[in-house]
Amino acid sequence: MTDLTNMTPTALGKLDAAARATLFTDARTANTFAATPVSDSELSEIWDLAKWAPTSANTQPLRILYVRPGQGRDRLVQHMSDGNKAKTASAPAAAVLAVDTQFHDYLPTVLPFRPELKDVFQANEAMRTPSGMFNATLQAGYFILSIRAHGLAAGPMAGFDATGVDVDFFPDGRWHSILVVNIGHPGPDPWFERLPRLHNADTVRWE
Amino acid sequence: MTDLTNMTPTALGKLDAAARATLFTDARTANTFAATPVSDSELSEIWDLAKWAPTSANTQPLRILYVRPGQGRDRLVQHMSDGNKAKTASAPAAAVLAVDTQFHDYLPTVLPFRPELKDVFQANEAMRTPSGMFNATLQAGYFILSIRAHGLAAGPMAGFDATGVDVDFFPDGRWHSILVVNIGHPGPDPWFERLPRLHNADTVRWE
Repeated sequence: MTDLTNMTPTALGKLDAAARATLFTDARTANTFAATPVSDSELSEIWDLAKWAPTSANTQPLRILYVRPGQGRDRLVQHMSDGNKAKTASAPAAAVLAVDTQFHDYLPTVLPFRPELKDVFQANEAMRTPSGMFNATLQAGYFILSIRAHGLAAGPMAGFDATGVDVDFFPDGRWHSILVVNIGHPGPDPWFERLPRLHNADTVRWE
Repeated sequence: MTDLTNMTPTALGKLDAAARATLFTDARTANTFAATPVSDSELSEIWDLAKWAPTSANTQPLRILYVRPGQGRDRLVQHMSDGNKAKTASAPAAAVLAVDTQFHDYLPTVLPFRPELKDVFQANEAMRTPSGMFNATLQAGYFILSIRAHGLAAGPMAGFDATGVDVDFFPDGRWHSILVVNIGHPGPDPWFERLPRLHNADTVRWE
């Protein structure tokens, strides 16, 4: 890693138009996938990139279950909403994104100068649970963009039976699923027409 | 925008190493900022890029309050945790990220083929509130990476008095703040040593 400690302000890089298109402006949620496989190393690299983006107190509560074609995918499809079953059945890979409800166990490792935060989180479930959910969801956003950064299409889906997934795949009760993301190369007629974005007059204010 | 409808799988772009470094591997949370200003057009462009990334049912519940130096920033600093006040006071811009609790009002616009979803959300607060929070938080992740995509440093902070911010800046009660993000060019000694990331053995499983 480059040592940026003494960098000047102008040293920060910028994304060019092609990279912005890959991540944001041209990228689309894929609903169908080509048969082209996605390798385990591609899947690993998606997380190995996404994991560097920031979380509060470096807590990193997101967990990943990669599901490949076979019995695991067949089980996962059963937990998807009816409108999503065919999408996941055609995807060469899927990721079940989950929050580790005991993420604070790792605080002494991830924030070595404040190990006592582990006990603060342990004692305060009303702080711990929303913090885990918030930071895992931030990381889910990073994960979706990292899929795109690797030249693959993402198909994130909130429509699935989270309790069913958790009982089936995370029986010890520690991980709670928050999102399923299909991963692959786009198939035939892969996406809808681009849906509208809200006007800035409705979304942005200034002080 | 390029028409990608008939693209072949190999047509999806990939980020090169420099772009990955800008977004993920070299980028760092900034704690101090140079005096170099950030223009309103830079701030607008951050959101104009981030807003293209996906949300469930295209709901787009995230809202942005951009705060520039002056009375607005002085008020915002007062709501920050003690450890964050100096950071925001030195930042040439900050964004208060908020969820629009009435995001479903826009459903007929953002999802024109399912306008009835507005009433489904209206009738079901137990679905609406977590959905808004989840999707706004995904968008907060996109927003942080979009800051970096524009050659700027982000300083996201969960440590602030959200109720105080909401009463002060969003008095009609509709927007609820979820994160404050300082934006600027890094100043002197801008960040800590890179903190560790968890091992994949603890975060990744395979099926």
